[in-house]
Amino acid sequence: MEEKMQELKKRLREIYDIHSALSVLSWDQNTYMPPAGTEARGRQMSTLGRVAHEKLTDPALGQLLEDLSSYEKSLPYESDEASLIRVTRREYEQAVRVPSDFIANFYNHTAQVYQAWVEARAEDDFAKVAPLLEKTLEFSREYAGYFPGYEHIADPLIDRMDYGMKASAIQSLFSELRKQLVPLVEEVTSRPSVDDSCLLQHYPKDKQLEFGMNVSRKLGLDFTRARQDLAPHPFMTKFAHGDVRITTRVKENDLGEALFSTIHETGHALYELGIDPSLEGTPLHGGTSSAVHESQSRLWENIVGRSRGFWNHFFPQLKEMFPSQLGNVTLDEFYRAINRVQRSLIRTEADELTYNLHVIIRFDLELAMLEGNLAVKDLPDAWRSRYQSDLGISSPDDKNGVLQDIHWFMDYIGGVFQGYTLGNILSCQFYEAALKAHPEIPEQIEQGEFGTLHGWLKENIYRHGSKFTSEELVQRATGSTLTIEPYIRYLRKKYSELYLT
Amino acid sequence: MEEKMQELKKRLREIYDIHSALSVLSWDQNTYMPPAGTEARGRQMSTLGRVAHEKLTDPALGQLLEDLSSYEKSLPYESDEASLIRVTRREYEQAVRVPSDFIANFYNHTAQVYQAWVEARAEDDFAKVAPLLEKTLEFSREYAGYFPGYEHIADPLIDRMDYGMKASAIQSLFSELRKQLVPLVEEVTSRPSVDDSCLLQHYPKDKQLEFGMNVSRKLGLDFTRARQDLAPHPFMTKFAHGDVRITTRVKENDLGEALFSTIHETGHALYELGIDPSLEGTPLHGGTSSAVHESQSRLWENIVGRSRGFWNHFFPQLKEMFPSQLGNVTLDEFYRAINRVQRSLIRTEADELTYNLHVIIRFDLELAMLEGNLAVKDLPDAWRSRYQSDLGISSPDDKNGVLQDIHWFMDYIGGVFQGYTLGNILSCQFYEAALKAHPEIPEQIEQGEFGTLHGWLKENIYRHGSKFTSEELVQRATGSTLTIEPYIRYLRKKYSELYLT
Repeated sequence: MEEKMQELKKRLREIYDIHSALSVLSWDQNTYMPPAGTEARGRQMSTLGRVAHEKLTDPALGQLLEDLSSYEKSLPYESDEASLIRVTRREYEQAVRVPSDFIANFYNHTAQVYQAWVEARAEDDFAKVAPLLEKTLEFSREYAGYFPGYEHIADPLIDRMDYGMKASAIQSLFSELRKQLVPLVEEVTSRPSVDDSCLLQHYPKDKQLEFGMNVSRKLGLDFTRARQDLAPHPFMTKFAHGDVRITTRVKENDLGEALFSTIHETGHALYELGIDPSLEGTPLHGGTSSAVHESQSRLWENIVGRSRGFWNHFFPQLKEMFPSQLGNVTLDEFYRAINRVQRSLIRTEADELTYNLHVIIRFDLELAMLEGNLAVKDLPDAWRSRYQSDLGISSPDDKNGVLQDIHWFMDYIGGVFQGYTLGNILSCQFYEAALKAHPEIPEQIEQGEFGTLHGWLKENIYRHGSKFTSEELVQRATGSTLTIEPYIRYLRKKYSELYLT
Repeated sequence: MEEKMQELKKRLREIYDIHSALSVLSWDQNTYMPPAGTEARGRQMSTLGRVAHEKLTDPALGQLLEDLSSYEKSLPYESDEASLIRVTRREYEQAVRVPSDFIANFYNHTAQVYQAWVEARAEDDFAKVAPLLEKTLEFSREYAGYFPGYEHIADPLIDRMDYGMKASAIQSLFSELRKQLVPLVEEVTSRPSVDDSCLLQHYPKDKQLEFGMNVSRKLGLDFTRARQDLAPHPFMTKFAHGDVRITTRVKENDLGEALFSTIHETGHALYELGIDPSLEGTPLHGGTSSAVHESQSRLWENIVGRSRGFWNHFFPQLKEMFPSQLGNVTLDEFYRAINRVQRSLIRTEADELTYNLHVIIRFDLELAMLEGNLAVKDLPDAWRSRYQSDLGISSPDDKNGVLQDIHWFMDYIGGVFQGYTLGNILSCQFYEAALKAHPEIPEQIEQGEFGTLHGWLKENIYRHGSKFTSEELVQRATGSTLTIEPYIRYLRKKYSELYLT
């Protein structure tokens, strides 16, 4: 069995090395690649994607997993080796349903659609990317078709990112959440609006980046194993246990843009950097699901990064870096500004209360597209009309509308957006559990100390990588299943204090 | 045959896609990768290197080449298809001699040795990299061993980079060159030294980079298909016909460093960007040899970039960008400063007259190492003693000595350095041929117009990629074989005017 485990690990290491190379190619396309490189980049990714998929679906790997199954049963469920066999089997069984040609073609397609999206967004020209997006929709429906017997056509796509979740369960969760959020948003936005003009002054790019990196470092990001670059859309990607990349974008007339996206991506990076290094080169060395990943980015961005305690520590430093902009601003004014609730157009810039309404719009629209009830050509109008009905505003252009988010333009349609709201929900569950174990955390945050919180998250979430499913992990870490109560409690408390007292 | 050609092209496209991915991984390691990524990067490159090598040595590819050989004979030698079959066969026959395991291990090794070199150079600690360099020497000797029957152990390594060249031929060429150069250097350096202090003032990094990019653009580099980043050692690499990268490094107290390295790498990039795009995804889409590649970088850097005419056009712009540094400097003073001949320590900063002496030292030392006549541990002393005897100076430290160049620390020992001097020689042959066809070129350069020269080079050299060997290409473009006369003529004329009149 020792020999078979070695053989399994050797095969997996190769597959994940190729996946890491793919991530480098994709990162480069998103950060530095000249536009004329697009066509060849698609081909390169397609070739590597095919090789990796062929290696993952090699019948010899299937045989190996079968040979190892009694060994697996002899081991504790949570042991590294049992988990490795179990999770590899899940990935193998998923992968063998999808032809290598399909995978290769889709990689090629995503490189082209990404570039078209960059241009379409810059030129506010949805028509430029629409034919490619139609193709993406076809790919997405075809992907689902490889998993017959699904309840909803989105389910196989959701399963890819949030194993075990179904559209129906998410819909009922979202409907409950909506019921709680809408009146709260109504109540808060009926109050006098908060002044956030202090954020909307001129903040030079270099200084913004420097401050963001300082915060990131303080939160625990190790820049000998990570770096930050600029990209049209902030993201995190990992090439190795010792090499994680985050990106941000800067608006010189809006301090919040780079700052909070840096904290958000730092949260993702801390998760990946916190995984047990012995799991490297296997499917276990990565966050377990989109939902848990977003729980970490949103936890650091919002629960920590938009808390009063956090700025109790950082605001003096921020003022020192931007004395002319913030010299006359009080901590309270700043705290209110970064938590201003408003019905707005851009998801990534939305406040915590309205954020999920943005997500739910996207989730509903992608389901409608997958079901065949919404054509790509009608998407911009559908977008506008949902923003109007759900948020009471709507974008006259598409670049601040349907073109604002990268996701549909770099992956399948379906499977990604639910993770943000599930992540918001989980972030509060995890944070409550951490506080229960370490009630001193809020005080430490006020002192700029994040080690206890980081340590708890690492111990209970990060180090396990993908050994456990979302569901198992949440149960282990919090003693409960996914539930919206802590999240609603958190929002109610924070925004009542801010707006309703 | 049509079908077999398609099959051949399909296989080659895959192989070159993987090679391009390897180039991205290597570029990233040289530019942005955090040091902790080294170990995994080596593994990733090793995995891709193995896959590419297995695909290239697939017996089915050999069979295809055999099946195509009568078709090849039916085609004109210089046709794209005949060239493709011929050059692929050469690469195939070379590759099948080398085991995939060897290739995979060597890729892994180079990623580690590169990182160790970066650190060793920064810390001036040769011992830190010496054990890895010993391993490189073993790899290099082992590589040669796969080609029994060579005349000199360096020949298989030279053949890899400069197909058809042998150590013996290079040695006799270098000895002839030395005979001509040494007295010229003696003569020139016996004259009063030139004042180049105008270059050694403070020049802010950003402005240096901006000026270099402007020059590069003016020379014809298309920045929609290329970009420049910073790296510890300037280099050029290509990922696709539409995606070529150059790097530079900046010294804020030396204007020449970034400027001339940018022009040098621009020359390499113009070559790669000028190859017929229909050759992409095949072994024909790349410069034909190290020598011809260096002929282009050195032609643009020196014959063009260090000429009086070139600065006739650019000096006013340079003065405008750096008025406080250059306001009182005349064009003649500047021209003399950038052509100051001096016995110096650093190859990449050496003037045209002494440059080849630096190369010959390296070539001799690598031959001695490969022959087993020089141990790695004795290399720093051997380096110093050769600098003392050949150039009359020697570096007290290793970072400006044996650790200055990247080459032995990122590839085999042997096969690379001769290309620089062969390139210098060829640059003058090519330039003379271009002038014969277009005597107006020098006047155009004075006007900042480079299109005619660029056009001639593209027509006679660039577009062919690797269709022709160095020897064939030189014959076609200049009507003669490689010869040092034009080079000696050029140096004599330029440096007599500068120093001896």
